[in-house]
Amino acid sequence: MNINKQNNWKEKLHEIIYEADTPAGKLFDIILLLLIITSIILVMLESVTSFANQHLEFLDTAEWIITILFTIEYIARVIVVNQPKKYIFSFYGIVDFLSTIPKYLSFFILGSHSLIALRALRLMRVFRILKLARFVGESNNLMKALRASRAKIAVFVFFVLIICIILGAIMYIVESGQDSGFTSIPRSVYWAIVTLTTVGYGDIAPATALGQLISSIIMIIGYGVIAIPTGIVSVEYAKSTSTEENTTKNIQEDIHLNTQTCSNCHETDHDDDANFCKTCGNNLH
Amino acid sequence: MNINKQNNWKEKLHEIIYEADTPAGKLFDIILLLLIITSIILVMLESVTSFANQHLEFLDTAEWIITILFTIEYIARVIVVNQPKKYIFSFYGIVDFLSTIPKYLSFFILGSHSLIALRALRLMRVFRILKLARFVGESNNLMKALRASRAKIAVFVFFVLIICIILGAIMYIVESGQDSGFTSIPRSVYWAIVTLTTVGYGDIAPATALGQLISSIIMIIGYGVIAIPTGIVSVEYAKSTSTEENTTKNIQEDIHLNTQTCSNCHETDHDDDANFCKTCGNNLH
Amino acid sequence: MNINKQNNWKEKLHEIIYEADTPAGKLFDIILLLLIITSIILVMLESVTSFANQHLEFLDTAEWIITILFTIEYIARVIVVNQPKKYIFSFYGIVDFLSTIPKYLSFFILGSHSLIALRALRLMRVFRILKLARFVGESNNLMKALRASRAKIAVFVFFVLIICIILGAIMYIVESGQDSGFTSIPRSVYWAIVTLTTVGYGDIAPATALGQLISSIIMIIGYGVIAIPTGIVSVEYAKSTSTEENTTKNIQEDIHLNTQTCSNCHETDHDDDANFCKTCGNNLH
Amino acid sequence: MNINKQNNWKEKLHEIIYEADTPAGKLFDIILLLLIITSIILVMLESVTSFANQHLEFLDTAEWIITILFTIEYIARVIVVNQPKKYIFSFYGIVDFLSTIPKYLSFFILGSHSLIALRALRLMRVFRILKLARFVGESNNLMKALRASRAKIAVFVFFVLIICIILGAIMYIVESGQDSGFTSIPRSVYWAIVTLTTVGYGDIAPATALGQLISSIIMIIGYGVIAIPTGIVSVEYAKSTSTEENTTKNIQEDIHLNTQTCSNCHETDHDDDANFCKTCGNNLH
Repeated sequence: MNINKQNNWKEKLHEIIYEADTPAGKLFDIILLLLIITSIILVMLESVTSFANQHLEFLDTAEWIITILFTIEYIARVIVVNQPKKYIFSFYGIVDFLSTIPKYLSFFILGSHSLIALRALRLMRVFRILKLARFVGESNNLMKALRASRAKIAVFVFFVLIICIILGAIMYIVESGQDSGFTSIPRSVYWAIVTLTTVGYGDIAPATALGQLISSIIMIIGYGVIAIPTGIVSVEYAKSTSTEENTTKNIQEDIHLNTQTCSNCHETDHDDDANFCKTCGNNLH
Repeated sequence: MNINKQNNWKEKLHEIIYEADTPAGKLFDIILLLLIITSIILVMLESVTSFANQHLEFLDTAEWIITILFTIEYIARVIVVNQPKKYIFSFYGIVDFLSTIPKYLSFFILGSHSLIALRALRLMRVFRILKLARFVGESNNLMKALRASRAKIAVFVFFVLIICIILGAIMYIVESGQDSGFTSIPRSVYWAIVTLTTVGYGDIAPATALGQLISSIIMIIGYGVIAIPTGIVSVEYAKSTSTEENTTKNIQEDIHLNTQTCSNCHETDHDDDANFCKTCGNNLH
Repeated sequence: MNINKQNNWKEKLHEIIYEADTPAGKLFDIILLLLIITSIILVMLESVTSFANQHLEFLDTAEWIITILFTIEYIARVIVVNQPKKYIFSFYGIVDFLSTIPKYLSFFILGSHSLIALRALRLMRVFRILKLARFVGESNNLMKALRASRAKIAVFVFFVLIICIILGAIMYIVESGQDSGFTSIPRSVYWAIVTLTTVGYGDIAPATALGQLISSIIMIIGYGVIAIPTGIVSVEYAKSTSTEENTTKNIQEDIHLNTQTCSNCHETDHDDDANFCKTCGNNLH
Repeated sequence: MNINKQNNWKEKLHEIIYEADTPAGKLFDIILLLLIITSIILVMLESVTSFANQHLEFLDTAEWIITILFTIEYIARVIVVNQPKKYIFSFYGIVDFLSTIPKYLSFFILGSHSLIALRALRLMRVFRILKLARFVGESNNLMKALRASRAKIAVFVFFVLIICIILGAIMYIVESGQDSGFTSIPRSVYWAIVTLTTVGYGDIAPATALGQLISSIIMIIGYGVIAIPTGIVSVEYAKSTSTEENTTKNIQEDIHLNTQTCSNCHETDHDDDANFCKTCGNNLH
């Protein structure tokens, strides 16, 4: 009986923490979301040295409060689950743990500069919350399209990489002796990727005529090639939305657009925000 | 009878200023359009210091003439409408007001450098005029496609943002101690956005080997990912133009594009066969 | 009889120069193409000062030979046509004239630096030759798709421009006082275009935190927005290639592509079985 | 009888080296793949001067081992084939040879800096291995789409190139006398390509107002134009995946992908049920 009660209590807490169907569950998620955003803003501000130096104490206190709240949440998650081990070694379990400990670690490790990155991991939690909030439903077809085109895009990326390595090696030879940044093949490959993806920083740019000729060819190839992943995703996305099942769903949505009928002149084609009949001026309700 | 006459006079002016069905209304719109373009060119020239210093007087006079003309237009718009308050606090009412006052404000505020931005707001008015001029009809399917893909693109942008923040934090750690511009996490996030969108200024660029490796991965991901919004818009646009059902609907919508504006509540989105305003029941005449 | 003979001689030359159906006509086109390409390479080499200084005489002689050959071609074109005026003032007539005279002009104008640009105009002639060579058939559907989406892309470009001007004005205010290159609104607008189109030179880049925030927003908008013209062209292109009606029409068009040019009025768009010019009734023989 | 035995031994080795149907053949491919990747990593590391200076001996030894292994493989390939000449002068035969010899050449040529590029050619071999490993099946539709849109993209690239040359010549005139990098027409053409493809290094960027105006126009054109190859590939790809006829054809092709290689004439494109080479009639066993 006692165990049952405890289970009952656990179940309720489980519903609050892991689900978002009840008001309490929604509230929990919203508070957590705000906490994460606050935390991320604090991490950002802390990295701005001019700000951090002025508000050291404030940032320290705020980080402690957030760390303690996340600690409580982490412990609660562990207690509430039936199989704690499964949670602890799950992806989100590890994220939760890693994003909670940096402040504790700062006791032991001095110059804990790189601990900031761990704290930025907290942002990953947003995905969990949003998943619970069914927000992701919107991107369902998108995900389907991406999953369907995953293999093709992988092949494409693989080819692009090989091309970049070969081009990088060629440019390394062509631009050697110049002060244009092609100091090693890895750097040249980095340049080839920067160019083919049309990012084009300009930190490394060809200085010789031959180098510029080769670059031009690369760019024009890249220009033609950028079309490929777009084509793949477009087609897959079109497929995942165009099937008959979807078509009927779309029609239903078109139909569901309001059913208001004017009680005076029977006009039915009213906009959703209409208060008066557009034909006779009668009040629509 | 007198009131009726005045209303009649008001109605005519309303038709000229707010609608574009009559020759007078069209002429009014064209003059306004030219005035706005002239004004924008003046604003631009004024910001070019070498030009502004030479032609100070000319620019001052021209700006005064334009300000007075816009003032008259603004007053006319307020007088002509039945519910002036609704206009004044509408989006275009505020734009009209803000883009008219800068010259008057320059009396009180010295060094009115930032008042120029207010004057550039005048350009927003172009959208209103063009809507009246049925120009927008061309972009109707486009708008529909954008509206349909709005939610999906929002989700996409949201994911991209979270990825940029996490990548920014990682690059901040990786590139710390280097003189490559990653001085804070917000700056690193800015860099990640510059890179993922393939803009690539080069004001901040990785200097370490690890930083360049991570950048390369980001770029190749971005390259594959840029396909997604394109795919979404393409498919939505294809949907909004291809189906037969839509074609007939489009024709109806092309007809329904009219410039009637309710003189009472300012609602503009009326069907072509509407005799009464759908929001307030006012006769559209 | 004498006139008839002369006409006959003219007609044959017309066929060689303006058409590509006969072996002589094809040979003429190929020689012209090679001449143009040689000429363009010479123009390029001449602009490279280190090369030009070494090979002054060679470049001068080569340019004279090409100029004389183009002069002969120009005169032949004028003589052969029935209505020389129509040719002289046609688009290609003007291109032919302008790209021939620079060397003659260099007698009168010293420092004829900018005459080089005129010579680069010769490249425009390539389009005429390729049209005759049926090469363009390949890009037929493409052209149709571009023509169909022209208006939509114009609207799109127009919106983008207005957005760039407003953003430019805002960035001018935000970045004023900084040494980041936003010295005037036109320059800021130029920057906004460089950013939105994802070119991103980096010659002008925001230095303030607010400026970088606004830039980030612009880039993410631009990222979503770049999808629009792609979507438009894709859909229009799909339309112009997919429908059955089009397929048969395409076949007809492939047949109808011929290089007959009316010697009287210069109309080139004749059907394959046409014996008389559809514009002026002249015998096409 | 002896010849038969030798043939049998040759045939088995042929199966291991050229095909991937047997466990031994698969193992051979995997080892070769690892060897190539190791080799490429070594080439990269060797080009990083700071690393190469520290680990000279290690890199030298490793390169010798790899070179010897590749030499053995090359000799085995030559011996095993019935017509060695055909292999030696085939594409992969030349790649194999060129990527094996650099280390031997380093005896004769001092400062063999550019020999590194030859070694990077080894990466090309990856394509051969992956083809055998049926990996390429994934990119089958992609290849079909690319082949179908090849001619159209070539026309497009050709037009873009002509536009770039004309724009380059114009910008050379406009920006002459400025210190903005437009020192010759080839360099200006290079800039035009960098701009139109939205790479935008910023090593060359317009400094005059007119130059920036022209650049802006180029960019906006490029923005609209980038849609074209994407549209082409999307449509062709959609075609190659959507039609029912294609679907069944695809299935057949998936089946037909096999790694049998004729030991006589090197033909690889055999149907699955083929017992004899379709080119030379040799038994495929």
